[in-house]
Amino acid sequence: MAAIHPVVLSGGSGTRLWPRSRKHMPKPFLPLVGERTLFEATLGRCAGDDRFASALIVTGAAHLAHVQAQAAAFPGTEVIVEPEGKNTAPAIALAAARLPVDAIMLVCPSDHHIADAPAFTQAACAAAALAGEDWLVALGITPTHPETGYGYILRGEAIPGGFAVQRFVEKPDLATAEAFLKDGNYSWNGGIFAFRAGAYLDALQRFRPDMAALVQRSVVDGRSEGALFFPDVDSFGAIDGESVDYAVMEETDRAAVVPAVMGWSDIGNWHALRDARLGGLDDDGANTVIGNVELVDCRGVLAETDGPRVSVIGLEDIAVVVDNGEVLVTSMAGAQKVGKLTGASSQ
Amino acid sequence: MAAIHPVVLSGGSGTRLWPRSRKHMPKPFLPLVGERTLFEATLGRCAGDDRFASALIVTGAAHLAHVQAQAAAFPGTEVIVEPEGKNTAPAIALAAARLPVDAIMLVCPSDHHIADAPAFTQAACAAAALAGEDWLVALGITPTHPETGYGYILRGEAIPGGFAVQRFVEKPDLATAEAFLKDGNYSWNGGIFAFRAGAYLDALQRFRPDMAALVQRSVVDGRSEGALFFPDVDSFGAIDGESVDYAVMEETDRAAVVPAVMGWSDIGNWHALRDARLGGLDDDGANTVIGNVELVDCRGVLAETDGPRVSVIGLEDIAVVVDNGEVLVTSMAGAQKVGKLTGASSQ
Repeated sequence: MAAIHPVVLSGGSGTRLWPRSRKHMPKPFLPLVGERTLFEATLGRCAGDDRFASALIVTGAAHLAHVQAQAAAFPGTEVIVEPEGKNTAPAIALAAARLPVDAIMLVCPSDHHIADAPAFTQAACAAAALAGEDWLVALGITPTHPETGYGYILRGEAIPGGFAVQRFVEKPDLATAEAFLKDGNYSWNGGIFAFRAGAYLDALQRFRPDMAALVQRSVVDGRSEGALFFPDVDSFGAIDGESVDYAVMEETDRAAVVPAVMGWSDIGNWHALRDARLGGLDDDGANTVIGNVELVDCRGVLAETDGPRVSVIGLEDIAVVVDNGEVLVTSMAGAQKVGKLTGASSQ
Repeated sequence: MAAIHPVVLSGGSGTRLWPRSRKHMPKPFLPLVGERTLFEATLGRCAGDDRFASALIVTGAAHLAHVQAQAAAFPGTEVIVEPEGKNTAPAIALAAARLPVDAIMLVCPSDHHIADAPAFTQAACAAAALAGEDWLVALGITPTHPETGYGYILRGEAIPGGFAVQRFVEKPDLATAEAFLKDGNYSWNGGIFAFRAGAYLDALQRFRPDMAALVQRSVVDGRSEGALFFPDVDSFGAIDGESVDYAVMEETDRAAVVPAVMGWSDIGNWHALRDARLGGLDDDGANTVIGNVELVDCRGVLAETDGPRVSVIGLEDIAVVVDNGEVLVTSMAGAQKVGKLTGASSQ
């Protein structure tokens, strides 16, 4: 089988890891779990392995400096610089249009954590094999709890190496999420996809012909500059942005899902980050600290500081984060609300 | 009746309000409740009232600058500068020896909060009247909860204006404290006393003759410098320090207690300070903040900062304190342990 082309999407920012994550230093480019940044780890999972070609990164001008600095260690990497963010469907289409039609793409968000890299590789290869048969393939993350913040994928008929998708489900309420977890046939949609480039573009042409045409024109009229590619601003700017889920996956009858158990986390907030740092959803009361921190009688505390000493006494399941003049203290249950804080929303 | 002489004790420091309270800026000199410092409020309670003479302050050289700066607004104040701290019995004896033998002293710690000043004045006058009859009088704070951090006073026979003391009890365990609270005849010992100067010195002469002699000599050999008085270093330094409770109150058979309900708090830790700021032991979930603070879904939270923004989400009954490069986060239940933190003990 030909090498798989990692397509790393590095857009968006996210404010729920404020104050550590900032507008100009967003989540993918921070060493949140271990010493590598999430972006470096995403590239690293596919590097030094003959089954993968060098990566194609899609990012925006705002993050290009971070991308170039952190991708420098991965030779052969190319970068498509989006004139503006138009969500995932056009971003993936740009990559598809720059690759040979028969290239197998593995679309990877760059702000997720995957603890079990070999399990990832195995699932990616299975997904790539199905993509080679013109399935449009999602990796399906096996749920560990009734999460209401993700979309779900219901498995249908078994096919070699995976399952046909019966349906995609948008973020459910808690009762529904609990039913999905109990049912056992639902996976989380983690935004990791395998496509044959030509098959993706064909599907886009069928379901979103205007978007497909504008992406095609922005590539034809774009320009290369070394390892960078700049799509045409006017054509790309005219696109009505949409996610790959809406534009393609929920429209096609060729959607497949490959279940994966790989210690995946979207590091969506401080609660998820604590769990990832502790190596999973532990309940043994361990704490995780970075910097000058003293904990007394604490359980399940994440504390990190970029300078000032942090002292915490008698608390459980909270995060204390000190970064560049901001001090955040949140319960794990409240972590979803961090993005709405004045500090996070006014940066 | 002759005017009562306030004797304000301003020694000690206390580390349980770290990082706000520091070695060189201790608790009495900070505006912890309202705009006045605890020290200013202590002087203020007896100022502008004909029943009180101007105050006599006993402090150490380390805090003299704070004392002078904050006492400047209270004319006629005199200051005795202890060469070193020897606990309360010698400090009170210094003041007694500098006053006429028939002066009625009202000994007041300078690091407590009293919400109801008129109730304080009323109790002080009742205590002073008893002191005029050579009782050695303690104000007895009516307990509001089974506190294990204070000494207790058991009332005996009623006397006009108060009660003879049946016994003093050292810090009890919780079960004992609960029994005391239920019993109704126990008061907290808040360290506020009324003595006739001569009666106090007589008692000290009787129970601690060495201490009495050394204090007397340090005053005779001391020197005045304007409104300051410096006891002789050698004599005072030779004293074996002891509290007024041990040296006098627990020895005498002339101890009396005047019960007082006056919203007293020793502001002994962040928990007590939160309650004082909220006006008592409320359980209505109110929060109290100072500085650039945003609270979301919080109850019973004290948050204060000297600069960096503090954002708190989803927490109950905690204190978050940011002061000069230190960040403290503690549960109210853990507030007693603040003094043992590395930051508090290594300053």
